[in-house]
Amino acid sequence: MRAQGSADMAERNIKLTIAYDGTDFHGYQRQPEVRTVQGELEKTLQGILRAPVTTEAASRTDAGVHARGQVVNFHTTNALEAGRLAAALNGRLPDDIAVVEADDVEGDFSSRFSARGKLYSYLILNTALPDPLLRRRALYVPSALDIEAMSAAAVHIRGERDYAAFGVKAAQQESTVCDIERVCVEQAPCNFFCVGQVELVRIEVQGDRFLYRMVRTIAGTILEVGKGKFTPEEISGIIKSRDRGNAGPTLKPHGLYLVRVIY
Amino acid sequence: MRAQGSADMAERNIKLTIAYDGTDFHGYQRQPEVRTVQGELEKTLQGILRAPVTTEAASRTDAGVHARGQVVNFHTTNALEAGRLAAALNGRLPDDIAVVEADDVEGDFSSRFSARGKLYSYLILNTALPDPLLRRRALYVPSALDIEAMSAAAVHIRGERDYAAFGVKAAQQESTVCDIERVCVEQAPCNFFCVGQVELVRIEVQGDRFLYRMVRTIAGTILEVGKGKFTPEEISGIIKSRDRGNAGPTLKPHGLYLVRVIY
Repeated sequence: MRAQGSADMAERNIKLTIAYDGTDFHGYQRQPEVRTVQGELEKTLQGILRAPVTTEAASRTDAGVHARGQVVNFHTTNALEAGRLAAALNGRLPDDIAVVEADDVEGDFSSRFSARGKLYSYLILNTALPDPLLRRRALYVPSALDIEAMSAAAVHIRGERDYAAFGVKAAQQESTVCDIERVCVEQAPCNFFCVGQVELVRIEVQGDRFLYRMVRTIAGTILEVGKGKFTPEEISGIIKSRDRGNAGPTLKPHGLYLVRVIY
Repeated sequence: MRAQGSADMAERNIKLTIAYDGTDFHGYQRQPEVRTVQGELEKTLQGILRAPVTTEAASRTDAGVHARGQVVNFHTTNALEAGRLAAALNGRLPDDIAVVEADDVEGDFSSRFSARGKLYSYLILNTALPDPLLRRRALYVPSALDIEAMSAAAVHIRGERDYAAFGVKAAQQESTVCDIERVCVEQAPCNFFCVGQVELVRIEVQGDRFLYRMVRTIAGTILEVGKGKFTPEEISGIIKSRDRGNAGPTLKPHGLYLVRVIY
């Protein structure tokens, strides 16, 4: 049986760009009994659209990982204009999730499969003293880091290769081959909400797809170079070995941000 | 009975500059049964110095208020060098408090009574969309604000005057007269941890002393000017009235930062 009211009949595909503070979520993906971004988003969408909604996301971020530009899409026959939907969502969502943009897109657009790439940033607070206001925003590393060596290491992580050394296949993935477009390391002065100044180290990673925990393992391997445990030249050998045991540790999630999805 | 061991005999006065995320504290001042900054700091100091310690602070910040440069002092006969004490404290304190600096100071230095002034900043996120990563760091105000009018209002709040319109005397205060050195309003672009850019409005307030909740009431009154509820010229009349009912609301604590104490 189809719904009455012609305004509600046409099927639409709506793309939402969302931001969240990952601290209090058990990751993006819906799971029974625990608080997830997808769970909160779908519950709120259902309240507004008065119909069950299933969303698909570009990235299934892990527990604790933040997003500035996660992309989600869903199909609906509801006629509520996209801008009004965004406003309604922002009025009802918990304050650790927000809708940044809402657009009607082509019916075949998939936030996940249409994505050509994703950009992540990993932040390290590399200062003598810890910073309470950044404790859930950047990994605190007090020891001196060789940023030049980290930058030199980053350029070795590039191109379409088997990156099994940096992660394992997620359930739905067929291989450990990914195409990494760019990894770069920068010292990034942050004006800290205009009430101070802090120096952060930012590791940016852009690629077409990623293995499970791959960005945090790339960041962990580059961090080991910064600490002098690997040389930049050893990175190529680590990748070639395809052995996860040769790479550095997977860093904690609270320093990781999904910055942008590229279509 | 005096302690044995001459290294521990001389009484020292130690000044600590501390930073904290106010979110999970019931304010600065020690209170039974609840988590406070003073309570956590003194408990940690006692664990390191193995003796009861009573600290005094420049400002008794309210629940939820943050600090980048709160100043505390205490007296001890322990000989532990100040830099090592800071390191020991940072190793043991909960991660929402950190010691930024530790120094030996003259015996008559008082963090509270030697202070010549204090600088606070109040942050407002004035954008169409909320920002989950700033939700505990700035007051979210989506409506358009007239920043020029707010700046014009700020200059009227200046000098040694009776500021009863902006607050009530704290228990230990004798009068409602304070000397406000400077109030200014600025649009402050914030590079948001290097993963984005946000525009904040910052209200800076510097004065010799403040009444209870005074900075947040000054910020609330300036915000009303930004919304067109008062004109900048009405500020002088509000101050002259000495009537708290004429001023704007006391803004929420999570936008307020104790930036610096001036000696």
